[in-house]
Amino acid sequence: MTNFADRLSEKIDEFQNPTVMGLDPLMEYVPLPILRKFGLDKSTDPSLKSQDRFFSLAAEAILEFNKSLIDAVKDIIPAVKPQIAYYELLGADGIKTYRETIEYAKNNGMIVIADAKRNDIGSTAAMYSAAYLGRTNTNNGSDMPAFDADALTINAYTGTDGVKPFIEDCEKYGKGIFILVRTSNPSARDFQDLILDNGQFFYEAVAEKVSLWGSGLIGENGFSSVGAVVGATWPDQAEKLRIMMPNTFILVPGYGAQGGTGETAAQCFDENGKGAIVNASRSLMLAYRKAGISEDDFQQAAYEEALRMRDDLNKHIFA
Amino acid sequence: MTNFADRLSEKIDEFQNPTVMGLDPLMEYVPLPILRKFGLDKSTDPSLKSQDRFFSLAAEAILEFNKSLIDAVKDIIPAVKPQIAYYELLGADGIKTYRETIEYAKNNGMIVIADAKRNDIGSTAAMYSAAYLGRTNTNNGSDMPAFDADALTINAYTGTDGVKPFIEDCEKYGKGIFILVRTSNPSARDFQDLILDNGQFFYEAVAEKVSLWGSGLIGENGFSSVGAVVGATWPDQAEKLRIMMPNTFILVPGYGAQGGTGETAAQCFDENGKGAIVNASRSLMLAYRKAGISEDDFQQAAYEEALRMRDDLNKHIFA
Repeated sequence: MTNFADRLSEKIDEFQNPTVMGLDPLMEYVPLPILRKFGLDKSTDPSLKSQDRFFSLAAEAILEFNKSLIDAVKDIIPAVKPQIAYYELLGADGIKTYRETIEYAKNNGMIVIADAKRNDIGSTAAMYSAAYLGRTNTNNGSDMPAFDADALTINAYTGTDGVKPFIEDCEKYGKGIFILVRTSNPSARDFQDLILDNGQFFYEAVAEKVSLWGSGLIGENGFSSVGAVVGATWPDQAEKLRIMMPNTFILVPGYGAQGGTGETAAQCFDENGKGAIVNASRSLMLAYRKAGISEDDFQQAAYEEALRMRDDLNKHIFA
Repeated sequence: MTNFADRLSEKIDEFQNPTVMGLDPLMEYVPLPILRKFGLDKSTDPSLKSQDRFFSLAAEAILEFNKSLIDAVKDIIPAVKPQIAYYELLGADGIKTYRETIEYAKNNGMIVIADAKRNDIGSTAAMYSAAYLGRTNTNNGSDMPAFDADALTINAYTGTDGVKPFIEDCEKYGKGIFILVRTSNPSARDFQDLILDNGQFFYEAVAEKVSLWGSGLIGENGFSSVGAVVGATWPDQAEKLRIMMPNTFILVPGYGAQGGTGETAAQCFDENGKGAIVNASRSLMLAYRKAGISEDDFQQAAYEEALRMRDDLNKHIFA
């Protein structure tokens, strides 16, 4: 089975584009032509006050939006990262859309990182891992994949035994994980910057464990399927982490709407311009919200923003 | 709107029982009479190899199991805590069962703690909070609750801005959160026991923040709706944390199957025997798996184990 980090590295090389498109859809992001198709443009329709009906239609509209965005960029962006909170907002209907988005992206050759930041003690972590990366045990001798993403974001607060089930499934099924090390938000400082008695920052202690946990899953391209999340908003920390975790693939959120730039994101790449992938969500999904662009042209707008971002990243990564 | 911690405290007082029943259902836990009802007892039925059909039937069987357990203990146990990983194993069908379990428990007077350990940066945390505690914005001027639990477990690695949206919804909707401070697993040590340059353990720094974050939501009973998770498996740490966080309601996992006892769990209660609730999952759900008990009697077995646990807890809390 091909190592996940190799699959991701090779797809990035093929497209010369280390971008992952975040799919974090809110109803207010869905362009008018899709709202119209599902009768969701008429806010006065009384049937839309029924929660069952609204959630079901909204989930269908969001699936259509996601599919359209995937169609628009699948030949230039290697991966998608649907953030599950946005789907949980629509209950079971949203989760159906989540699964179908994963399936559609994979069928279109994209790599899927399920962004769910899951975490728990070992016995429960094993269930999250089965759901997102592995397979669900039945009581009839077969097992079945629930979401079957290529990779999952996780939080390691519970320590080794809460992470191990994910690592085991990475190995068994050729999947990946990205562990929160340095998050992109301003309050990342609150806990992650606490200084330990050995002089390290707390996030550095997490980084050391991530590197250790990943040491058995390093692929031919030199990166491990046990990756890390490091925000594009923290270039100094990223520079240090890149050195501390030379074999760790880094998922980089925070580009665009959160203030990260090509220059700051570039700190997460190694000296060969490898080993990281940068997420953008709103800047791609809402690329159509610019003066002079019609909502009908949201796919073209996403495509053009994807090209702009690709060039911006490459310019700084290979500067 | 009644403060969540007050609602929980009063329900515990009414039943003289600080127990929350964990609902962490696997197919292998479902007793035979329920499997039979849904045709899931015949592992040779070829139609069960269809994932859609299996997930749908399995989710129905688990809902029935949950409802039966709720019926069995609703007059003696004040709250339930469904752990969402077990439902995510069945995709959208599982999430439908999750929502219906929450609804059924609430309709039967029980308080529901959604155990999901959600966490992310502020903008995404706000979506998780809306999904579990608040309401989903629509584009038609109304808003609708997706899960509408009474409380949610969260992880605070992202710091203040990742926690704030949950606290705001606690205030707005009379809900609660329980923040991971000291998890019940052996590897809790890995990060939570790192020593800071001021001599504190890392988990103590988290505890201080939890106490601070909760200071504005303290109810008439003296406890805050911003609670903490502290494992029954760590009595020494619990004793210290109880003093450090005098107004924090503590959710205590790890009793029973994980090795926590009435004696160790008692450390999470204050000198008046208040301010904590102890979770048991497998020991209640699988109480029927004892010599001499028929699977038909799983409700009676759960009821009797609930009484035993209640008495065990009270004996040690008020020792």
